[in-house]
Amino acid sequence: MSAYNGLFADYNCLSAAEGLLSAGKENEIETFDMFFREIPDKGGFAVMAGLGTLCEKLMALSFNDGDLAYLREQGFSEKLVNYLSEFKFECDLYAMPEGTPIFPNEPIIKVHGPAIQAQLIETLLLNTINYQTLVATKANRVSRAASGKQVVEMGARRAHGADAAIEGARAAYIGGVDATSLLPAARKYDIPVVTMMGHGWVQLFDSELEAFKSYLEEHGDDGALLVDTYDTLGSGVKNAIEAFNNVLVPKGLRPAGVVIDSGDMTYLSKRARRMLDEAGFPDCAIYASNSLDEVLIKDMLNQGAKIDGFIVGEKLITSSSSPVLDGVYKLCETEKNGEKLPAIMLSNNVNKITTPCSKRVWRLFDMETGKAIADVLTLDSETVGEEKTYSLFDPDFTWKRKTVDNFVAREMLVAVFKKGELVYESPSLEQIKFYCNEQVASLWEEVVRFENPHRYYVDFSGKLWGIKQSMIEKIMHESDGTGEKING
Amino acid sequence: MSAYNGLFADYNCLSAAEGLLSAGKENEIETFDMFFREIPDKGGFAVMAGLGTLCEKLMALSFNDGDLAYLREQGFSEKLVNYLSEFKFECDLYAMPEGTPIFPNEPIIKVHGPAIQAQLIETLLLNTINYQTLVATKANRVSRAASGKQVVEMGARRAHGADAAIEGARAAYIGGVDATSLLPAARKYDIPVVTMMGHGWVQLFDSELEAFKSYLEEHGDDGALLVDTYDTLGSGVKNAIEAFNNVLVPKGLRPAGVVIDSGDMTYLSKRARRMLDEAGFPDCAIYASNSLDEVLIKDMLNQGAKIDGFIVGEKLITSSSSPVLDGVYKLCETEKNGEKLPAIMLSNNVNKITTPCSKRVWRLFDMETGKAIADVLTLDSETVGEEKTYSLFDPDFTWKRKTVDNFVAREMLVAVFKKGELVYESPSLEQIKFYCNEQVASLWEEVVRFENPHRYYVDFSGKLWGIKQSMIEKIMHESDGTGEKING
Repeated sequence: MSAYNGLFADYNCLSAAEGLLSAGKENEIETFDMFFREIPDKGGFAVMAGLGTLCEKLMALSFNDGDLAYLREQGFSEKLVNYLSEFKFECDLYAMPEGTPIFPNEPIIKVHGPAIQAQLIETLLLNTINYQTLVATKANRVSRAASGKQVVEMGARRAHGADAAIEGARAAYIGGVDATSLLPAARKYDIPVVTMMGHGWVQLFDSELEAFKSYLEEHGDDGALLVDTYDTLGSGVKNAIEAFNNVLVPKGLRPAGVVIDSGDMTYLSKRARRMLDEAGFPDCAIYASNSLDEVLIKDMLNQGAKIDGFIVGEKLITSSSSPVLDGVYKLCETEKNGEKLPAIMLSNNVNKITTPCSKRVWRLFDMETGKAIADVLTLDSETVGEEKTYSLFDPDFTWKRKTVDNFVAREMLVAVFKKGELVYESPSLEQIKFYCNEQVASLWEEVVRFENPHRYYVDFSGKLWGIKQSMIEKIMHESDGTGEKING
Repeated sequence: MSAYNGLFADYNCLSAAEGLLSAGKENEIETFDMFFREIPDKGGFAVMAGLGTLCEKLMALSFNDGDLAYLREQGFSEKLVNYLSEFKFECDLYAMPEGTPIFPNEPIIKVHGPAIQAQLIETLLLNTINYQTLVATKANRVSRAASGKQVVEMGARRAHGADAAIEGARAAYIGGVDATSLLPAARKYDIPVVTMMGHGWVQLFDSELEAFKSYLEEHGDDGALLVDTYDTLGSGVKNAIEAFNNVLVPKGLRPAGVVIDSGDMTYLSKRARRMLDEAGFPDCAIYASNSLDEVLIKDMLNQGAKIDGFIVGEKLITSSSSPVLDGVYKLCETEKNGEKLPAIMLSNNVNKITTPCSKRVWRLFDMETGKAIADVLTLDSETVGEEKTYSLFDPDFTWKRKTVDNFVAREMLVAVFKKGELVYESPSLEQIKFYCNEQVASLWEEVVRFENPHRYYVDFSGKLWGIKQSMIEKIMHESDGTGEKING
């Protein structure tokens, strides 16, 4: 848990809180949606992650004396400081379970509670979910590219700070990688940990052979040798074979593997494979690790690289080809005197227009194939799934209609907090990882593929669509028209 | 300070430590360089940052009972656990001061001490310096693009975790931004903090006008109004003007500003400027904030956007166009029986070949212009600057030679720790920021520019070059030649 938990907020969140208190609106009930707009790497889906961490942070959310003194110094009102001194999270929170494939413009978290509380947690919530979802999404791509070969996360050295390394390892595991090299992450989340030799070890000895032998004496059949310090084939693999024969064979042990960390790894892996096979070590694994990502891994495997496992660093832990998940947290409903009022944000970019009302999200699965057909957003008062057929229509292109039958509907947002009490038992990380894999398998191949994936349907109920349209029309009508048109 | 400080290491670091103890080599003296290979965003230089944070972490570096129990569970030896139970950082550490423009393939940090210690800190050191240097470098680009207009960092919601948000705000301030919106960063590092209204505030009221009035009642001339919730010009700016006239003017106050967060901001800012001017508010600032970076800011200013300040989010805090600094930490020298032995890593990628020997880095400044001419790496035993002229030559293209005179040489690596004791008094963040700005000004415009910057010279002394060449030749000669050629 990071320090500064209570205070982990942009100034405007506390400023809003102060304003709400001053206007006597702090306990007006508001509902916020977290949703995102673009899938990283132009993929077909993202993978929800970070909820477990968010739960921990929300339960620990409080303001200590230092926080309060600082806020006083900053000129915040005594009213705010008093309120925060007794702060306890009291909202309802619904969320997509971790590991769920998620799609743009649908609520992945819904927060319902006193305005002051719902607004205070914005920065904390977005920071936690945006990052872990980003990494889980990337890890899922990398793991799929590796086609069942082992993938190890080893990005701490270039992760964006310590939390990124630790929470990123968690998210990567959810998304599909098999292990991490980072001890605090392995410890905190009980993730399998693997070792890899460093160049420093090799260089500490007078010769590479001596370094290898000494390493094998220490680690037996449990440590892979890093073979690229001087010359991968001419020196590294040759010395590895000699060391295996010298140290392991007499003890009846088999080698764990060799690691290639530079050069043309497809070529080198094929040559190394042949050398190892000919030397009687066909069971010695070959690992590769050099700025790998899903594109390189796929390409190497397509070219017949003889690689048994991939060690993936900065390109996974920073999702470097697409390093931002653009999740936002927007008001969708307020309550005044018990009456629920839908809220919308119009904006001048059509893709920034929000969807009003507190909503439910339903995922329709085809009974025959088990495949996910579409997600449908409805009002809280609506259900999906009791009818025999359901008529889907695209909220942007309303002439796109499709009637589905023989389906089951699953409600996707599950209750996590009720009035601040945790009511959700988070599955273990292993269970989440399993669920992720299973749920990705429920998507059509066309949605899952890397290149030009099919856009998965996220549709609206007729009622929800009607409310949104009438709100947009009303606001456009009220605006005096001197402004610009809404553009895409 | 993050939890898991002592344990913040990849498994291989602790595995190496165990091996060193077992081989009785833990106290052999080693020297490691941290350096990077590529400048983010194809820029001409990076900006050193993170040293202050690293110092805090190294001073706090210890293993608590939980850490030790975990390592025991993982099967690490009692010898290692005992060693770590009394761990105290004992190395010498030299570093470029924060805010220094730095270049590829020169040591930016040098660690000298017992092998076991120098190897243990690798992950912690790289994680801290790589990220802050990345963000300081990006912030410097963004600030330069803004040409003196205010720049506010507001990236916490999409930063890679809490540390990234907090330490990123620190680095961004060093690199040149003026303020942050993140309270814990402002508090921890004493960075100016600024507020921005959220859309949630506007939506809480029955009308935008009411929301604005209420906000101004609260904040007076200290809060900028967010004008894009419904329709920037037709509603937002119009209502802002009415609210200024209603609330501020009677009190004799002037408006702080308006914020445009979506749409075509160049166009909108010009129209908004005219509306505000005509309404008698030529002093009302216009801020822009919508996925901005140095490219967009430059372009907007080139088109005559009427923007007084830029609020920069995810593209700064993740350096999204170039989200990785590829800093590495490599052995360059060992000591055996008091004799210093240069160490090299050859690799199959020519750009991964390291430079041996414990080195000094000298920056030569032209006495007349004050401009930095080149950096020169020398052996520890060499000095630069006492001669009247110095003959530079390119380590890769040795026919490129240049004799300089009328220069002063500054030694760039300063002592930070001596045998684990902090001997460096870190300047204040304000001083670092000032120094950064001053040092960037000492670079030639050709090095500083965004597009195709000139490659700044990082040259070797003749002695250093000679040692490196002879080591490469010796290793290539010893390798049996079945391997591949070294390629670039």
